[in-house]
Amino acid sequence: MVFGAILAGGIGSRMGNVDKPKQFLEINKKPILIHTLEKFYLDDAFEKVIILCPGEWVDYTKELVEKHIGKQEKVVVIEGGSTRNETIMNSIAYIEENYELTDDDIIVTHDSVRPFITDRIIKENIEAAKEYGACDTVFGATDTIVVSEDNKIISDIPDRTKMYQGQTPQSFKIKKLKELYNGLTEEEKAILTDAAKIFVIKGLPVSLVEGEETNIKVTYQYDLRVAEALIHEDSEVS
Amino acid sequence: MVFGAILAGGIGSRMGNVDKPKQFLEINKKPILIHTLEKFYLDDAFEKVIILCPGEWVDYTKELVEKHIGKQEKVVVIEGGSTRNETIMNSIAYIEENYELTDDDIIVTHDSVRPFITDRIIKENIEAAKEYGACDTVFGATDTIVVSEDNKIISDIPDRTKMYQGQTPQSFKIKKLKELYNGLTEEEKAILTDAAKIFVIKGLPVSLVEGEETNIKVTYQYDLRVAEALIHEDSEVS
Repeated sequence: MVFGAILAGGIGSRMGNVDKPKQFLEINKKPILIHTLEKFYLDDAFEKVIILCPGEWVDYTKELVEKHIGKQEKVVVIEGGSTRNETIMNSIAYIEENYELTDDDIIVTHDSVRPFITDRIIKENIEAAKEYGACDTVFGATDTIVVSEDNKIISDIPDRTKMYQGQTPQSFKIKKLKELYNGLTEEEKAILTDAAKIFVIKGLPVSLVEGEETNIKVTYQYDLRVAEALIHEDSEVS
Repeated sequence: MVFGAILAGGIGSRMGNVDKPKQFLEINKKPILIHTLEKFYLDDAFEKVIILCPGEWVDYTKELVEKHIGKQEKVVVIEGGSTRNETIMNSIAYIEENYELTDDDIIVTHDSVRPFITDRIIKENIEAAKEYGACDTVFGATDTIVVSEDNKIISDIPDRTKMYQGQTPQSFKIKKLKELYNGLTEEEKAILTDAAKIFVIKGLPVSLVEGEETNIKVTYQYDLRVAEALIHEDSEVS
């Protein structure tokens, strides 16, 4: 079985003065979260798609889903946790309550504010997570990457051909991810804010899935304008 | 003295099927290179602004400058080299032929296809290069950065708070940069394609100057659309 977890826990502090978390802002008159959900919802691979959002936005999100997608068994909205990993763990708790899991069941975790995910990226995530146990969607670094230990002077400029910008989805064998996460100390949990990094730290393989230049995260106002341009291009093509 | 070097050597292979290198493509009916040049041209700090482009585009670039800026003593167009660093060295050769340099003279090197550079970034580059000898314009990594030694499996996911995306300008004390570059072996020259890295490798400080989210490099067709959106916002504000 394959599950989708759409992480919509953000409170949008980087978006500036807006009245809603950024996942609810609209592109082409539809909330970003719904654009993202549609990509998952329409993919037959998913047994269930779980949307995780802040507790105070659960009812609002349910209404949005009903309005744009209709009443659907395949989609469920639940409350996320206080961190990204806790949010993923909430989705796993929901899955365990409702399904009998085997070692090979997969969760595809995705940022709600990356609405331009493609079918290819989802398919390759599922394949790679099945084969390797974990995978991460990345895009070869466009810019030179610079490292500074003190945030003042450059410590290193690593070889760009080995550097990638992380996107999402990140996909995992569910039981393995839970086992690894539960084995972490509180200190480790505080540092390992990226689920793929838990596998890396434990010496387990995380396979790369090639993302897309356009699989952007809508973080700043600037990105909203880019997203509008991309959506309209999508419309022209299809 | 402070000199500007606008690096317009690219042949634009990532832009897709277009008839000109990307620095000559237009945003808001003006070539990208001219937008960039204007930011330097209007800054009194510069003794001279040197545009470096492929040999076969020198005459065309001169015509563009004359058309958009007029005949100007302050701007010169010359041929770049076969690599980024060789291009910078060509600009230094030009400067040495025409000026008597001291140890403290500065060169501000900038991608011709980053037209959204700001006055603040230029000023801070000049100050930082004077104080430290070298500086690099960077922007805190928006995405998680992922390292893969074999381009298949993740090797490391470094702490994002120490990771930056390199932009330009990169600014240097001219004499020091030339001395370091001339001290490199041919093998080192082949690897050290980033001028700031030459300082880093030699253990010399390269200071960080904070860039801007909008100081983008126009690399893909996608960026051209973003650039159009940014230019029009600029127009609305001013």
